[in-house]
Amino acid sequence: MAEPFDAVEVIRTKRDGRRLSAEQIDWVIDGYVRGVVADEQMSALLMAIVLRGMDRDEVARWTHAMVASGDRLDFRSLGRPTADKHSTGGVGDKITLPLAPLAAACGVAVPQLSGRGLGYTGGTLDKLESIPGWRARLSYDEMLAQLRDVGAVICAPTDTLAPADRKIYALRDVTGTVESIPLVASSIMSKKIAEGTPALVLDVKVGSGAFMRQLDDARALATTMVELGTDAGVRTVALITDMSTPLGLTAGNALEVAEAVEVLQGGGPPDVVELTVALAREMLELAGAAGAPDPADVLARGHAMDVWRRMIRAQGGDPEAPLPRARETHDVLAPADGVLVRLDAFAVGVAAWRLGAGRARKEDPVAPAAGVQMHAKPGALVRAGQPLLTLHADDPARFPRAMEALEGAFEVAPVGSRPARPLIIERIG
Amino acid sequence: MAEPFDAVEVIRTKRDGRRLSAEQIDWVIDGYVRGVVADEQMSALLMAIVLRGMDRDEVARWTHAMVASGDRLDFRSLGRPTADKHSTGGVGDKITLPLAPLAAACGVAVPQLSGRGLGYTGGTLDKLESIPGWRARLSYDEMLAQLRDVGAVICAPTDTLAPADRKIYALRDVTGTVESIPLVASSIMSKKIAEGTPALVLDVKVGSGAFMRQLDDARALATTMVELGTDAGVRTVALITDMSTPLGLTAGNALEVAEAVEVLQGGGPPDVVELTVALAREMLELAGAAGAPDPADVLARGHAMDVWRRMIRAQGGDPEAPLPRARETHDVLAPADGVLVRLDAFAVGVAAWRLGAGRARKEDPVAPAAGVQMHAKPGALVRAGQPLLTLHADDPARFPRAMEALEGAFEVAPVGSRPARPLIIERIG
Repeated sequence: MAEPFDAVEVIRTKRDGRRLSAEQIDWVIDGYVRGVVADEQMSALLMAIVLRGMDRDEVARWTHAMVASGDRLDFRSLGRPTADKHSTGGVGDKITLPLAPLAAACGVAVPQLSGRGLGYTGGTLDKLESIPGWRARLSYDEMLAQLRDVGAVICAPTDTLAPADRKIYALRDVTGTVESIPLVASSIMSKKIAEGTPALVLDVKVGSGAFMRQLDDARALATTMVELGTDAGVRTVALITDMSTPLGLTAGNALEVAEAVEVLQGGGPPDVVELTVALAREMLELAGAAGAPDPADVLARGHAMDVWRRMIRAQGGDPEAPLPRARETHDVLAPADGVLVRLDAFAVGVAAWRLGAGRARKEDPVAPAAGVQMHAKPGALVRAGQPLLTLHADDPARFPRAMEALEGAFEVAPVGSRPARPLIIERIG
Repeated sequence: MAEPFDAVEVIRTKRDGRRLSAEQIDWVIDGYVRGVVADEQMSALLMAIVLRGMDRDEVARWTHAMVASGDRLDFRSLGRPTADKHSTGGVGDKITLPLAPLAAACGVAVPQLSGRGLGYTGGTLDKLESIPGWRARLSYDEMLAQLRDVGAVICAPTDTLAPADRKIYALRDVTGTVESIPLVASSIMSKKIAEGTPALVLDVKVGSGAFMRQLDDARALATTMVELGTDAGVRTVALITDMSTPLGLTAGNALEVAEAVEVLQGGGPPDVVELTVALAREMLELAGAAGAPDPADVLARGHAMDVWRRMIRAQGGDPEAPLPRARETHDVLAPADGVLVRLDAFAVGVAAWRLGAGRARKEDPVAPAAGVQMHAKPGALVRAGQPLLTLHADDPARFPRAMEALEGAFEVAPVGSRPARPLIIERIG
């Protein structure tokens, strides 16, 4: 009973629209990790935060308290420019896969702690796990060694990194308290600040396949995260990028790894190349990698592919092994001649999820070979009857519900119709 | 997994300001009782309800679902006009004690299911338990038999009465979700509807010692409860009454029983008599007790005292036994000559609570003899140095913190200053 605060009083403060003090925030987060604040109390507080908001000082302190709940990594001993990237998630977003080795090939160390997919958005670790032998869990020492040897590491966060965030995130997931800019921003930034990167490029997605559907919301989230990073001493920039249509031509795990490898070999879909290069340039600049070569050249010369192979091998994977392939495929055909003017990211994401690429609950496995392959992107000319999409699944019983998700998801218009919006919409920071 | 709804979807509906459907409400309350909806999910939903509200149909359905979670009592077999009273709680509110026997003496059966105190407001059952031998728990058959023999019963609700309300109330208490008109109204009315009374008089308190501090809020709560009762077929009326100063001259358990007995014997403080008679008249009218004698006459003639004795004896109590007395007393003196213009209900309630009359947690015991005795009420002339209050406690170490609560709680002004507001402020229904 020597607690300095009472959980009900803290909840009431926010419920009634007042500011939480730094001391209240520190106590409630620490108390939640210690079990003094119960799940039902934290969920009531989270709902009050969703509906009442938090101001800049409150979000900064909330983030700080989550960082303070665990260890903080430190890569200064590398003696090398270091930068990380985080995407708020979307459909077909495999950018981390080519980007980490590309930035490393340009001389920047990339300690990329990634996550798994939940719902219709994919997870970088799930994608990499479709490579035979590859493992996501590394110790801090293994991370450091790999950064020294290879320059890039993509792995799961250690258990001691922002444990308060992990516990709160699991609670938000089951209590309808995910959708809140302060809570999303502090969750992402607490992990990135604890990770110890001195520079961070954020890729904030906007559109049907993103957490943020409206540009104003994406801008608010990006601004909050850039402020949080900057206030915590992390040089932070955000690009707001389009997620109204999937990135690249694949959504799925092994399918996306294959596409990433194409990009690393100097090919691949133009949008994936464009965004990978743009983010790599931001990382180089933020990391202060003076005199680094241009990422576009490095990509073209195959240097990033060398780093990729070493990075995959360092984590037990075989970069030459064939990727798993689905037992069944099903084509979706273009209904008419014309221009594909719309291919909805959310619909493709849900279809890939229903084919087995994603999980409904955290503990579910994913089907590595399942997903959606696209044969055209908005702006492309198509002919009636040509395959627009190929669905991949191990069990053909999954096709009908995936097809349902795709109803009304694409549109073919007469030649001359207007193209989609630009991929990179805005830069904040 | 054959659940028709998903808790997160139900939470999001209310979070985003939309209406809950009847089916969603029925499911979420039943699911909470069954354990399919977790505490942390219900508390997030409750916070969303606190901040987003519920409309008349939603509150009615929420109440109905809580009634449907348990048994519904039925007193029609009594073949007698039947009515109950409920107060939203205040300081010194012992009205149920004289009222139940008074209404019974006028020919109306009174099945009064009461509660215990929490925080600074007292509970009727705690007060009656200061009578040696008296027991609060009766079976439904014992209630019926006592209503037939004596005409009045004051007891604890059975466990099977609105169990959803009990579970939700316990959760609200620890999650800062008590203060909500829809939740308060549905909690009270679910118990009263399940109790099976055909007529109900509500005493909605307003002022510093009440749940509702503002008249507008009290009016909104009263209106919601009257609508809920009426919609469920219970003839319902509400009086809005003052709780800016304590009711009567005592706040505590045995102290209030003694005062109630004075009223039953034809004496007692005028405000307690006035409110008891006014509520009794409302009960008679609502119950349709045509030709019943006037409660003021019945009180004066001592008939209600006879019913009181039989009611206490029927539940094992000895109405003649001396009540417990505190081991220590401490007087608070008037600081000046003049008119007492203010004696704050909240401060007196907190003082009584700190003296031991109330409990901090549900499982704590109460000290039957502890409390505050008042020697003057607002409007009375006082002389410097006369006792204004006498504090009663078993342990003198409790006096200093009770005195702290009373700082600034009363005011003596020059003779001629204006009196307090009326006791009965408004009638709704």
